[in-house]
Amino acid sequence: MSCEPALPALRLARRCDRLTSSLVRDILAAAVQPGTISFAGGLPAADLMPALPLATLADPALWQYGSSEGEPAYREAVAAWVGQGGLTISPQQVLALAGSQQGLDFAAKLLIDEGTPILCEGPTYVAALQTFQLFGAEVLCAPLAADGPDLAALETLLATRRPRAIYLIPCFQNPAGTCYSAEARRAVAALLDRYDTLLIEDEPYRHVSLDVDHPMTPVCALLRRAPWIYLGSFSKILWPGLRLGFLAAHPALMPHLVRLKQAADLHTQRPGQMAVAHWLASAEREADLARLREGYRARRDAMQAALERHFATLAEWQPPRGGLFFWLRLREGFEATRAVLDAALAQGVTFMPGEAFFVEGADGHRFLRLNYSHATPAQMERGLALLAACIRAHAAVPA
Amino acid sequence: MSCEPALPALRLARRCDRLTSSLVRDILAAAVQPGTISFAGGLPAADLMPALPLATLADPALWQYGSSEGEPAYREAVAAWVGQGGLTISPQQVLALAGSQQGLDFAAKLLIDEGTPILCEGPTYVAALQTFQLFGAEVLCAPLAADGPDLAALETLLATRRPRAIYLIPCFQNPAGTCYSAEARRAVAALLDRYDTLLIEDEPYRHVSLDVDHPMTPVCALLRRAPWIYLGSFSKILWPGLRLGFLAAHPALMPHLVRLKQAADLHTQRPGQMAVAHWLASAEREADLARLREGYRARRDAMQAALERHFATLAEWQPPRGGLFFWLRLREGFEATRAVLDAALAQGVTFMPGEAFFVEGADGHRFLRLNYSHATPAQMERGLALLAACIRAHAAVPA
Repeated sequence: MSCEPALPALRLARRCDRLTSSLVRDILAAAVQPGTISFAGGLPAADLMPALPLATLADPALWQYGSSEGEPAYREAVAAWVGQGGLTISPQQVLALAGSQQGLDFAAKLLIDEGTPILCEGPTYVAALQTFQLFGAEVLCAPLAADGPDLAALETLLATRRPRAIYLIPCFQNPAGTCYSAEARRAVAALLDRYDTLLIEDEPYRHVSLDVDHPMTPVCALLRRAPWIYLGSFSKILWPGLRLGFLAAHPALMPHLVRLKQAADLHTQRPGQMAVAHWLASAEREADLARLREGYRARRDAMQAALERHFATLAEWQPPRGGLFFWLRLREGFEATRAVLDAALAQGVTFMPGEAFFVEGADGHRFLRLNYSHATPAQMERGLALLAACIRAHAAVPA
Repeated sequence: MSCEPALPALRLARRCDRLTSSLVRDILAAAVQPGTISFAGGLPAADLMPALPLATLADPALWQYGSSEGEPAYREAVAAWVGQGGLTISPQQVLALAGSQQGLDFAAKLLIDEGTPILCEGPTYVAALQTFQLFGAEVLCAPLAADGPDLAALETLLATRRPRAIYLIPCFQNPAGTCYSAEARRAVAALLDRYDTLLIEDEPYRHVSLDVDHPMTPVCALLRRAPWIYLGSFSKILWPGLRLGFLAAHPALMPHLVRLKQAADLHTQRPGQMAVAHWLASAEREADLARLREGYRARRDAMQAALERHFATLAEWQPPRGGLFFWLRLREGFEATRAVLDAALAQGVTFMPGEAFFVEGADGHRFLRLNYSHATPAQMERGLALLAACIRAHAAVPA
């Protein structure tokens, strides 16, 4: 009977014990309530996206099943696009994905047994953390400094814990916004080569680059020995609702990854792949990207101005040079706890508390992540004023 | 370096040992060679698919990220569609999937630890077998009879091995073509209730029903106690290249499944969901389905006629009453071995050897699966003549 409320005792896999309701899901659910001002999610600005090339979608040849690897035109266009970013690959090293999140699922399947140590940045992308933990990883964290990981801490963890893989977001890290310097990229690559540590490099934000003046060569391109998986997404610049991303990988990993794709969903939707391939080859591409960056820059600057008005005495931060987020460290005596979040939600404002991005909470309550790409300037002004008041009202009594 | 051919020793998860190259992949790769007559895959007939409603895809509101559960309009339309088939569910019990294969990935994640016993039909869908084994299941098989599973064997396995779940394809089983009788459906449901065994019911072929004269009530709808997951697909009637399917499940399982969807790829592509919802609500729907069935019936009958000409002395079979395949049992002395497959491939003809569908080979070499929906009548005539000659040339010397 389909509506039976009670159940015989369910026997589920052990990993389901780790599939608990997440703070992030609760916050994002609250964020879609009408009237809520959301700084919580990572929604790109739909009004800045190029138009969808409908004629491409109309081709009936794309209705039939396709190949697990992806459309040849997509793989070729992506290989060229990635090559322009500094990572030289062949189309045979490209696997079409239903968004780059799918690459995290495949990396977890490829690498993680119960208890496998996986090294991440601290803080790191919450959904990567959840996926690695779902598969039973022991997640270790190397702290982030201003222009990359703390190299001494990183080497100690590589040497003593021998993680099976490391997960990094070197361009406009989520949530911290860090963009690795050219020196940090070379130093990290050398360490991974020394310890033969597989690199998972996640780059959803590479093309939401606002004012970076140094080369952002992918760390994968700097490796000489260590195997690697490179994740890319079109969801921040084109149409996230179509779910289109890709991975590129060392040739020795590709057969495994293609079989994981086949087992997961056979292949990525074909009309969407062709729409992206069409855009990548279009004469409008660079102008589209310039317009998109201009739009994001204006919103980032509006958020910075509003933050200066409302948060100068509460927190310190660097304006992000790309990506979609501000990462604020609260000054002594202030916290972004669950109580602050609840108070803000009650006033119709959401944000992402820092604790979601750390493995063990750490001092996550001292941080908060604010998205700048979704709210209007007027919403920013009102929402940040309300949020600052909530934080002040919950200030810890100084010791 | 991206082109390094050699690698440091890869440290992969244990499950990757089970991710070996599959016979099926090799065969399907051969099937796309130009000039090959393929009876191997399960490609639906693209010329019978309804037109894609392009105006639906054009809505810019669908470009933004969507919900993990799926579009409300899709969930409502699917719930009504499933209800018309005999399984009454609410839209909240529907999860949009990138094809029903994705439901197998989620079921495996939800249920399977290393060594978990999972019961299937013998033979069964090869990609389900591979997914369950990838996650470490011990796959058990209950043999299929003419109108459903061998009930005595099924009960013995339920009682003695206590499988955590059972995977069934009651409508036009792949590969055997079996359509469970109404009595078999009731008897199976009663057994699953008695042993509290979770049912995964896979129904990709329900709507490719050609001449069935008994009710095909989903077994899920007949359960009183046992939990269940119901998998449905649009890939056999609409546009498989868009990757659109769904699962419905007992309410207690939905929170877990939604979180697995979020971790796997965030959500299913939105324009495709809306295209399906549009078709499900369209006035043309029943006429489209009637035309599609008519087309499949003509192809099935053409295949039957060609088989009678070339295989009458080689094999026995029942013309399928739905689905996309003939399942042939070779007569004594004949085999469909890898050697026969290689000989057929050399002549430009492919088929699926029976062994792919059994866990332990069993007597799989006595069976072959032939798809009837892809080849033209002229290709059927020529391809089946060539294949029959290959089988005769490799006949075992009678003992």
